Amino acid sequence: MAGSTASSSERHARTLLGDARTVARVYLDYGGFSPVDPRILGVMRPFLESGIGNADGAHSYGAEARTALDSARAKVARLCGGAAEGVTFTSGATEANNLAIRGLVRSGERRHVVASAIEHISVINSCRDLEKRGHAVTWVPVDGSGRVIPEAVADAIRPSTALVSIQAANPEIGTIQPLREIGRVAGARGVPFHVDAVGAVGRSPLSAGECGFDLLTLSSNDLAGPPGVGALWVRPGAASLAPLLLGGAQERGLRAGTPNLPAIVGMGVAADLARTEWPREVERQRSLRDRLIAGVPATVPGAQLTGSVGRDRLPHHASFVVSGVKADSVLLDLDAAGIAASSGSACATVTGEASHVLRAIGCDPREQQGALCFTLGRWTAALDIDAVLEALPAIVERLRRLAPAP
Amino acid sequence: MAGSTASSSERHARTLLGDARTVARVYLDYGGFSPVDPRILGVMRPFLESGIGNADGAHSYGAEARTALDSARAKVARLCGGAAEGVTFTSGATEANNLAIRGLVRSGERRHVVASAIEHISVINSCRDLEKRGHAVTWVPVDGSGRVIPEAVADAIRPSTALVSIQAANPEIGTIQPLREIGRVAGARGVPFHVDAVGAVGRSPLSAGECGFDLLTLSSNDLAGPPGVGALWVRPGAASLAPLLLGGAQERGLRAGTPNLPAIVGMGVAADLARTEWPREVERQRSLRDRLIAGVPATVPGAQLTGSVGRDRLPHHASFVVSGVKADSVLLDLDAAGIAASSGSACATVTGEASHVLRAIGCDPREQQGALCFTLGRWTAALDIDAVLEALPAIVERLRRLAPAP
Repeated sequence: MAGSTASSSERHARTLLGDARTVARVYLDYGGFSPVDPRILGVMRPFLESGIGNADGAHSYGAEARTALDSARAKVARLCGGAAEGVTFTSGATEANNLAIRGLVRSGERRHVVASAIEHISVINSCRDLEKRGHAVTWVPVDGSGRVIPEAVADAIRPSTALVSIQAANPEIGTIQPLREIGRVAGARGVPFHVDAVGAVGRSPLSAGECGFDLLTLSSNDLAGPPGVGALWVRPGAASLAPLLLGGAQERGLRAGTPNLPAIVGMGVAADLARTEWPREVERQRSLRDRLIAGVPATVPGAQLTGSVGRDRLPHHASFVVSGVKADSVLLDLDAAGIAASSGSACATVTGEASHVLRAIGCDPREQQGALCFTLGRWTAALDIDAVLEALPAIVERLRRLAPAP
Repeated sequence: MAGSTASSSERHARTLLGDARTVARVYLDYGGFSPVDPRILGVMRPFLESGIGNADGAHSYGAEARTALDSARAKVARLCGGAAEGVTFTSGATEANNLAIRGLVRSGERRHVVASAIEHISVINSCRDLEKRGHAVTWVPVDGSGRVIPEAVADAIRPSTALVSIQAANPEIGTIQPLREIGRVAGARGVPFHVDAVGAVGRSPLSAGECGFDLLTLSSNDLAGPPGVGALWVRPGAASLAPLLLGGAQERGLRAGTPNLPAIVGMGVAADLARTEWPREVERQRSLRDRLIAGVPATVPGAQLTGSVGRDRLPHHASFVVSGVKADSVLLDLDAAGIAASSGSACATVTGEASHVLRAIGCDPREQQGALCFTLGRWTAALDIDAVLEALPAIVERLRRLAPAP
């Protein structure tokens, strides 16, 4: 590790993420927020600075805006492997999940939903809202690695099932779900299948044709595009949705409000880069990630990987529970050492509740307190992995000395 | 007019809005979309390029993000003249209007709403949705200038009234509403008062203390900030709202999803600039606007101003109906002459319906077809006004010759 030398991409990362001090900053919370690819910013910029902003404008700026909007729609659809007219741009993945679930179920007659116990909080709270309104939800359990068993989904489907909603991969523990099998189960029963693809799209095989999903939630920032924009792709004819936001007839009446064109253009470019560059980039991240997955348990006694391994795991994701320490303290000390990581889902953090995901995979409450999550990205370099493996063992040891486990 | 010389700000506008050709482009659709102030982009940029993006991050990037979010909240609140904790950031004004109306009314017991007949389509469709769910809405009519009569609001309020929602100014005809009087009427009856302030904030006196509003809708792009972000300000304690988007507990549980930090930071800077620079800037725009208001009817026979005049009109807004022509054709010809304008509300355009605003002020259907709207902004220069006054008379004359009024 002492022999690591900074490559050009590593130096770029220092410039992007470094601060004024000479300490190199290590950013391993891409799941929480991804810096935007400077090439994407370059494409967005004219859409921020000029009058090309409103696709409903009755002038040539408006015509240019319409062309840009259509083009971004086609790019995002290409990443989903589906039809461009299926794309509805939203303000992000949370809105897309709300639109998919509440928009679909509330507009139909069927009053039952199947979802896994480890969905994103926006899926869970959308389902809970349906429950309050008299709908029924079956929460399918997962195995110890966080994997949804397709047979359990099959068993949960009823004649009144309006929707099956299963995430492509879990943001806290990295487990990739067997979408193809679940898609077959839902398809055989004629039930629309919604997939929250945040974390997984661009990082694991995922296309409308192969996976059989009917609705797909995407986040732009998850693709190193700008935040504040996402999309819901719906297979044409597969589902009828009621809009969540009411007003103008933008996005074919599915989402009122002037579309956020600069961000949408950025998301289009991000989708193109994810489709064309990421297959190679993801392998680079996977091999860095594998060093963490091997190195942390080897150097930190009592550290255990959570979630799946190998190809069943997100390639940019390493998560652990570390016994005898609290995640907050570890993260504080890591931060002091210049390393930014997280304890799991950023959104779950806000709720202040214990992790529903770790509970669902059978972690005991004391283990749950020591959950750490490292998510890699476009600017992660070997140096960053070195830094974690150097700093973490001493941090855990010190914290355990300070507050020995009872 | 021939004597106009390009000032530095005019040359800046050419750079911002000009195209590769030597033809200067004239942009007078700031109501549809405003180019973002380059100074605002400059402040946003580090928030796009670095890891400072997620205010829930458990590291120093997250702490910086929280500070930036709080600071933007304070800046936006200062512009409203209200408390910072009242600000909820949304994806734009449409979402803020939906949250104010549907979020407030559906969370309470009272089932009646008062709104004017000329509200923005997002207010109208939010109210119509409530009507479908069994609530009642009283649509208060306006006079020939588009002014809501405060006494009519007083007459419409019932014991069951949950909310009075009146826009600060109309985006199609520029009329500023007597908010202070309406606020007194609503306040006297103990009914929360919501104001959609798009168009008016920063351009006409508007503060929570003076106008008596309890909820205020703001758009960032309306302040030359980035699109894709807006805010709803709620007077602390004045109203309890149910969230529209469900998921994480961001924005005090009122709006799930990772806040769009770069855009929110931009909106904060925009709010500060609107508060400090706009009082002078608006006077500059008003005098340019007055040349249009005087010049168009003087040079185009059959052109009539719509909406209010003087201090009762938005200072950047000039709107007309031109008899014997269709707006679409005029806008096409203006565009060919390098001038971007609109026919009125961009959002109304999308619905494909005739303007509810022009109908409400008593325009006959033939006049409504010839509605033109010019909205000025930060980079509007005397040259732009010259261009309209030069081009428009000949365009209207030619179109009337081609298709004489029956």
